[in-house]
Amino acid sequence: MPEAAAGTMRCLVKHHAGEGLELTERPIPEPGPRDVRIRVTKAGICGTDRHIWEWDDWAAGRIPVGIITGHEFVGVVDKLGSVVTRCEVGQRVSAEGHTTKGVDYNSRTGNAHIAIDTKIFGIDRDGCFAEYIVVPEENVWPVHESIPDKVAAILDPLGNAVHTVMEADVSAKSVLVSGTGIIGLMAVTVAKAAGASRIFATDINPPRLELARRLGAVEAYDARDGEGWIKDVRRHCRGEGVDVVLEMSGASQAIDQSFRALRNGGTAALLGVPAKPVTFNFTENIIFKGCTVLGINGRRMFETWYQMEELLLSGRLELDEIITHEFPLAEYKAGFETMMSGEGIKVVLGIG
Amino acid sequence: MPEAAAGTMRCLVKHHAGEGLELTERPIPEPGPRDVRIRVTKAGICGTDRHIWEWDDWAAGRIPVGIITGHEFVGVVDKLGSVVTRCEVGQRVSAEGHTTKGVDYNSRTGNAHIAIDTKIFGIDRDGCFAEYIVVPEENVWPVHESIPDKVAAILDPLGNAVHTVMEADVSAKSVLVSGTGIIGLMAVTVAKAAGASRIFATDINPPRLELARRLGAVEAYDARDGEGWIKDVRRHCRGEGVDVVLEMSGASQAIDQSFRALRNGGTAALLGVPAKPVTFNFTENIIFKGCTVLGINGRRMFETWYQMEELLLSGRLELDEIITHEFPLAEYKAGFETMMSGEGIKVVLGIG
Amino acid sequence: MPEAAAGTMRCLVKHHAGEGLELTERPIPEPGPRDVRIRVTKAGICGTDRHIWEWDDWAAGRIPVGIITGHEFVGVVDKLGSVVTRCEVGQRVSAEGHTTKGVDYNSRTGNAHIAIDTKIFGIDRDGCFAEYIVVPEENVWPVHESIPDKVAAILDPLGNAVHTVMEADVSAKSVLVSGTGIIGLMAVTVAKAAGASRIFATDINPPRLELARRLGAVEAYDARDGEGWIKDVRRHCRGEGVDVVLEMSGASQAIDQSFRALRNGGTAALLGVPAKPVTFNFTENIIFKGCTVLGINGRRMFETWYQMEELLLSGRLELDEIITHEFPLAEYKAGFETMMSGEGIKVVLGIG
Amino acid sequence: MPEAAAGTMRCLVKHHAGEGLELTERPIPEPGPRDVRIRVTKAGICGTDRHIWEWDDWAAGRIPVGIITGHEFVGVVDKLGSVVTRCEVGQRVSAEGHTTKGVDYNSRTGNAHIAIDTKIFGIDRDGCFAEYIVVPEENVWPVHESIPDKVAAILDPLGNAVHTVMEADVSAKSVLVSGTGIIGLMAVTVAKAAGASRIFATDINPPRLELARRLGAVEAYDARDGEGWIKDVRRHCRGEGVDVVLEMSGASQAIDQSFRALRNGGTAALLGVPAKPVTFNFTENIIFKGCTVLGINGRRMFETWYQMEELLLSGRLELDEIITHEFPLAEYKAGFETMMSGEGIKVVLGIG
Repeated sequence: MPEAAAGTMRCLVKHHAGEGLELTERPIPEPGPRDVRIRVTKAGICGTDRHIWEWDDWAAGRIPVGIITGHEFVGVVDKLGSVVTRCEVGQRVSAEGHTTKGVDYNSRTGNAHIAIDTKIFGIDRDGCFAEYIVVPEENVWPVHESIPDKVAAILDPLGNAVHTVMEADVSAKSVLVSGTGIIGLMAVTVAKAAGASRIFATDINPPRLELARRLGAVEAYDARDGEGWIKDVRRHCRGEGVDVVLEMSGASQAIDQSFRALRNGGTAALLGVPAKPVTFNFTENIIFKGCTVLGINGRRMFETWYQMEELLLSGRLELDEIITHEFPLAEYKAGFETMMSGEGIKVVLGIG
Repeated sequence: MPEAAAGTMRCLVKHHAGEGLELTERPIPEPGPRDVRIRVTKAGICGTDRHIWEWDDWAAGRIPVGIITGHEFVGVVDKLGSVVTRCEVGQRVSAEGHTTKGVDYNSRTGNAHIAIDTKIFGIDRDGCFAEYIVVPEENVWPVHESIPDKVAAILDPLGNAVHTVMEADVSAKSVLVSGTGIIGLMAVTVAKAAGASRIFATDINPPRLELARRLGAVEAYDARDGEGWIKDVRRHCRGEGVDVVLEMSGASQAIDQSFRALRNGGTAALLGVPAKPVTFNFTENIIFKGCTVLGINGRRMFETWYQMEELLLSGRLELDEIITHEFPLAEYKAGFETMMSGEGIKVVLGIG
Repeated sequence: MPEAAAGTMRCLVKHHAGEGLELTERPIPEPGPRDVRIRVTKAGICGTDRHIWEWDDWAAGRIPVGIITGHEFVGVVDKLGSVVTRCEVGQRVSAEGHTTKGVDYNSRTGNAHIAIDTKIFGIDRDGCFAEYIVVPEENVWPVHESIPDKVAAILDPLGNAVHTVMEADVSAKSVLVSGTGIIGLMAVTVAKAAGASRIFATDINPPRLELARRLGAVEAYDARDGEGWIKDVRRHCRGEGVDVVLEMSGASQAIDQSFRALRNGGTAALLGVPAKPVTFNFTENIIFKGCTVLGINGRRMFETWYQMEELLLSGRLELDEIITHEFPLAEYKAGFETMMSGEGIKVVLGIG
Repeated sequence: MPEAAAGTMRCLVKHHAGEGLELTERPIPEPGPRDVRIRVTKAGICGTDRHIWEWDDWAAGRIPVGIITGHEFVGVVDKLGSVVTRCEVGQRVSAEGHTTKGVDYNSRTGNAHIAIDTKIFGIDRDGCFAEYIVVPEENVWPVHESIPDKVAAILDPLGNAVHTVMEADVSAKSVLVSGTGIIGLMAVTVAKAAGASRIFATDINPPRLELARRLGAVEAYDARDGEGWIKDVRRHCRGEGVDVVLEMSGASQAIDQSFRALRNGGTAALLGVPAKPVTFNFTENIIFKGCTVLGINGRRMFETWYQMEELLLSGRLELDEIITHEFPLAEYKAGFETMMSGEGIKVVLGIG
């Protein structure tokens, strides 16, 4: 595909109520008075984008046809709205994808990530699989000069992992990462960098388990042997269980087993989203155990972003084996296929 | 029944694997070297005692036939074990009913209430429906002189309410008490005394709802009108929901509805014990809501006891309408019937 | 003084580098694109305004001559800037007086009250002793309909008290309020409403101590008898000391004595500002005591405001004896004199 | 010195009210009913032991002449008191040196490390510079098999460092370690293992600063250039300051400078003990900064010990350059001289 015509840009659009995305042209958007226009350089493909591509029930119920997709990216500030004061043209930036009106309890108390009126780039409004994106200035995050573009493109999902790990407070604690998908793998390296003493991982995918070990897990178990791995984790942990569970799978059985592997008084942070209600033993798994359960959504705006920057500056995050592929925008189909086949883990699109 | 013979004492024993308890005589127990013998003056009848009386599945699976029942009481220290240093004969005391070996993680970090090896008076070892009880000296709690015996007899269940309220951190927050049984009603007055700004209550028992209002609830709803009360609670709370849920019912539907009434980022403390697994929407109720869920069991040993003493010293706990009846030990059948019929709420037995 | 000329408004200006303020006229300000203009109805006189009036060293070093003073107020939204979305004309509102650029760590993490670049109404930019004030829309706080104007006018200093109390976490705890000036007195009623079990107060002003008792202090001591009151507080608190200190005086000796009255592991929240460095025994008062010390400044933006609304809705704050006087703007000199003489506590000016 | 006579043991006693210690013989002590006798294998020399050796004002005021000194050790359980249930003969153990009666608020709430009636081995009662020591069974800590004796001998001071770091919550935060004495150096490696993102250190001893760098400090500054290093630390930390200060020096100027290097809303944990009161700017350093100050004493009993075990199991603590020397008991004078000259850092005595 050639360059876009003057005043237009190339972008990936959910063009119909069915499978796939279409690479097309749209007018370059103008920023509103409080907005910033960013020229996108790289963008990550998220598991959510896969749902949108596949047009599953969730996507069909939420995504407006015609939207530009994508919500993980890095770019350069290109144009400022008329009243913008917090950004400068030329800044290298990423942006938080959750936007709110700013008037509910959570938006006004440092918890906009769980506002009641959240709209998300690439889901509820035009996203970043495009040469330009317009975002509210409050959402812009200046990227530290030491962070390469490839990493800066995926701060959104890395932020999910950082948020989960930091809420669960892993320092000097044993940690079970339940599910080693993209964010689960990120959680392994983040937990180690954040001071987790010993990390255990479970999944049903042997290569992912092997990668979890290389990223710092002392043991990585096949989740299908539930009784076996729970017993072994307990043995490692004074016969009592792990201090912290990070639930990344959303699988019903994994949730139950993870709670059983947790010690009394431990903490379970839940990020993985079950597709339907789960039959769960509250009495044994939560109440008698006296444990704390944390629902995790998005990233704190912006405490998580600062924590993420510090972790990246520490030099201890190992992301090279997680960000496995990069494709130019024109080859987006190959990018999605690589990610959806499981051959790749995190796939980045080079855009500008 | 006349006085017990010399060297023996009257006590309520689970005498057979079926309904009821038997008032009988047993030898007065001798304290071990680290134990304290207490002459019991008053003891409360707990919902757990009702299960033991009725010999339901839980009781049949846990309670050893022949045990002396009861675990809520006040009395006077009568005899010290040979190496006891922390108590004195003549002290008016109650005692924490959970005992542990003291070697697991929680026992050694101020959280013995969730130890892995807990044994409980009146359930796993002889209890307090007796003229004398022997308890480890670590479990003894000196009762402040300003607290009357009637109240001192029920510090154990009051401690459940205090523990739930204090873990949930209700100060200057709106609070929903889901279920106004004995501990739910206590939670209403405790939450108010602990600084909850506005308390909402739900139950299916109109007189209990009325009592909840008198104890400080601004609204008390019939739980059966789920959509109605959830909507009204949200209306009271900026359209977002309550800050805190205290779940005291253990009912599956009440758990679901309470979470729906909770604002994003709120806290739900769960004390009520569902009898079987619950089908639950983790995605909407916990994860997307970004909320915190706390499993509550027993009472902190002994932070809850100090908090309870402070709340009692504040003069703000209203327990007169909760402790409704008192019977002498010989009339224990009337006591249990009054409690089991719902005519009484908390029933106390006068023993010594 | 007659009404202001068309297009102008009456206001209290720091007209020269010396004592006093001048009632004069200024053009009615126009809101910038992100600002809101508020027609002020009532405004409170703060201790800070007294410093500005008296032109002490602090004021001479900070306050620009020519500024309109005042930072506590209630009013009605009168005009919106061109890009404002969060307010409506006609809303009854107050506003947070701290403004920031929104780009430092604390501004972006829900802690703008301690940003590095704070500017304050009536100190660094024009304030509310005026018929109109212009404020950024983010700073506007809609006032609940149940809160009377007299109270809504003083949410700023009440917020200082609420912030101190809530940070210190007083629920079910014994609390010492050191210093019963305006905010100290507010802290007594706030701490009681927020669930403090027992409140002790110290000051050197007998009528204020008497008022502290009426507001809920169980004991109110003459601070000059240091050894006596510390001993008595300890006696009330198991011989160990209070759980929480709220230091409101800024007096060197009071700080030392308050720490001595604090139990090991307790919490001291410091709001009172010492005019110069204090010679302090860190070893005994903080380190060996294992206590937590919290520096308190301003109000959380906006968690404190929500907490304050809840406390006001609880109906438990007693402010009638604290807001003692109200004067029309034209009688501002009488207002300041009443406050400065100690005859009044909180004095409110009726403006619009 | 030959072996001790039958029934006696060799030990280091504070034999007179002056400099030095004496190696002498004492009867092997018998455990009381609740005590455990431990055969000591290795013991560490603490800075406190140096004060006792030098007989400074503090030592002269606190230490009873005739006491066996020493409080850091590892050994093997040798004999159990008659009612002991939590230990076994032959266990390899260390022990917490703080003992309490167990009846005050902190002892009963998991905070015995700040009890009001603490007695310490080797200070208030006979210590571990001896072939045998008797300790209450509650104080015994089983040592994990993977931890070598040399490290197990110094869990007490390592616990001071772990306690300071863990209270300050360093995970994903920038941290300043003020003072790189023994515990300051331990704090560098502990903070890194516990997840601190970037560590800065200050001291006036260049070799110690160099060692701090090797242990993980990204910058180590000469504290005497106060303005210079504060400016540089701020530059590294967004121009705002570090998230956390760990004050290990107890030096008046270092305390002031560390607070100036702390960002608004940061946390300062104070372990270093100033020898006399400090003149301190509460207004700028704590109140306007809105920061949190934590007094640190001893180690949590026993949360810190569990955290320490986890950190040791993580394999990330680098102690080899901190534990520099080992001497047999008979050469204790050389051991003390090596430590006191600064040639050694942590010196361990081999005893059994």
